Amino acid sequence: MTIALSLGDRYGVGPEIVAAVLAERSGHAPPLLVVGDVAVLERGARDVGVDLDIVTVTAPVVPAGRTWAVLGRPADIPVEPLGRVTPEAGRECLDTLVALADLATSGAITAVVYAPLNKSALKAAGHEAGDELDYLVHRMAPAGEVGEINILDDLWTSRVTSHIPVRAVADALTPHAIVRSIDLIAGALAASGRPRPRIAVAGLNPHAGENGAFGREEIDVIAPAVAQAAAAGHDVTGPLPADTVFPLALRDGFDGIVTMFHDQGQIALKVLGLGRGITFLAGLPVPVATPGHGTAYDIAGKGIARTDGLVAAVDLVTTMTRREEQA
Amino acid sequence: MTIALSLGDRYGVGPEIVAAVLAERSGHAPPLLVVGDVAVLERGARDVGVDLDIVTVTAPVVPAGRTWAVLGRPADIPVEPLGRVTPEAGRECLDTLVALADLATSGAITAVVYAPLNKSALKAAGHEAGDELDYLVHRMAPAGEVGEINILDDLWTSRVTSHIPVRAVADALTPHAIVRSIDLIAGALAASGRPRPRIAVAGLNPHAGENGAFGREEIDVIAPAVAQAAAAGHDVTGPLPADTVFPLALRDGFDGIVTMFHDQGQIALKVLGLGRGITFLAGLPVPVATPGHGTAYDIAGKGIARTDGLVAAVDLVTTMTRREEQA
Repeated sequence: MTIALSLGDRYGVGPEIVAAVLAERSGHAPPLLVVGDVAVLERGARDVGVDLDIVTVTAPVVPAGRTWAVLGRPADIPVEPLGRVTPEAGRECLDTLVALADLATSGAITAVVYAPLNKSALKAAGHEAGDELDYLVHRMAPAGEVGEINILDDLWTSRVTSHIPVRAVADALTPHAIVRSIDLIAGALAASGRPRPRIAVAGLNPHAGENGAFGREEIDVIAPAVAQAAAAGHDVTGPLPADTVFPLALRDGFDGIVTMFHDQGQIALKVLGLGRGITFLAGLPVPVATPGHGTAYDIAGKGIARTDGLVAAVDLVTTMTRREEQA
Repeated sequence: MTIALSLGDRYGVGPEIVAAVLAERSGHAPPLLVVGDVAVLERGARDVGVDLDIVTVTAPVVPAGRTWAVLGRPADIPVEPLGRVTPEAGRECLDTLVALADLATSGAITAVVYAPLNKSALKAAGHEAGDELDYLVHRMAPAGEVGEINILDDLWTSRVTSHIPVRAVADALTPHAIVRSIDLIAGALAASGRPRPRIAVAGLNPHAGENGAFGREEIDVIAPAVAQAAAAGHDVTGPLPADTVFPLALRDGFDGIVTMFHDQGQIALKVLGLGRGITFLAGLPVPVATPGHGTAYDIAGKGIARTDGLVAAVDLVTTMTRREEQA
């Protein structure tokens, strides 16, 4: 097994956290194929004050005896100054995503982790869509449903709607979309070693609508979807009020929470651990994960960015790939 | 100064947490006038295993030398079993709210704290409106704007919309309503001793709309409201993404956060401290506060309910009343 790891936006914290993680890489871990510009990785190493023994390869294979190597992608772009949006860095990120997708579909690598991208830079480079998941889906053409799962420690959340206005959320909820989101998170949890996960489903409205007093989506859409998922064999509960489902999950040990819109889960996860969470892209041909935090331009190059998110992302895809190989 | 304190729904955790707080009451604290059925308070004392020296009064005055007394409201309702919704207990709560409101408007008391009510019981008793704030407003007829503020430790949140469907939120946001919510929380913070509070305003959409990509309310409604409030002299920032505004506030020390809808703030506060938060009703003739938690029927009578919320509610109205008297 080989995990491909990109440097992310060159003007963000990606290169330095990758350098820090590589410096700590032990011989027991699966090999990492770093995909990116060596000059940027060298700058990241200087930023965190580590000395990296960089070996560059031209084919996607980590040499025997090494825990990592760099599949070089030299680019004629300045490595400094940091902390800025540029179309060039955005274009580099998009091109690298394509390279990662092609490495995955060719079978050369078994999982992908990418360091933080910047949505404004991607947009400046001409990528109009909402997020990088769309971009990978377009390139990898997976057979089934895909979706983003947000993870903090043992708490997993999926969401039925994502980067759309709050105004449009209620009409976007359908039993089909909710069941799909339950399937997606249950499948990903199973792939990570929790075979019959306990899933909680959040409501949409205050107090989960309080029996229809503040909205009817719980009665008309969410409860029927939960019943349908339960009939299909899921261990699933809900709809539960969105403001109590997270403390409840932490106390009662739900494995996953299905949320109705972006901020329900993101508010909870970021309050619990800003900078520690990860994003998993479920439904792609290989496991794909990334730290939940962004490029953090304000601290880029200072060597103080936390590596927890990146480490957790690598650990998750490692676990999933190992289980797949044993299956 | 005298603080009126009700027992809340008799079949919830209210009576036992009131009994526990009374048992710890010291001579230095302002006097509490407990308003409710002595038989229920006695049962609460048994539930938590404390011995209360109960003195009953018929006029709303705590006798000299006492830190608390009971203004008895005997009711011909069973004191047990606990943990159930009944119209009788709901009716008792509504009648007690009226009594508290009248004590406040008559000037007999200087602040109100009420123990947890149950919305289903209030509804069973014929109260159709969304919350008890409406009920108190109707009775107290305050001159200006009113609103609910949710508080956890030093973090205060107000909300522009409250118990309405998520579907209706976007259209309910207006610059006027947002400025009103900023005024309300800034005023309450000033009354508690933070004269020029730093206020953050949350956006509505994912990533605060990302420059209009996922919704335009930030651009069309929220930013103009923030500018207007700043021009009026508030120290106010926003709109900020709702999923990062809470960690940011905890790190950078904002005093208050103005949220756009119910669950934005409630998800964050309940993850941070379920059972510890309090609700403050701003804009009424006297300070009114209540624990943020509910009747917790599942643990009522077991003597394990936390008293933090009730203690914090009493402390807050004490601080506010003292400042008012010194002013």
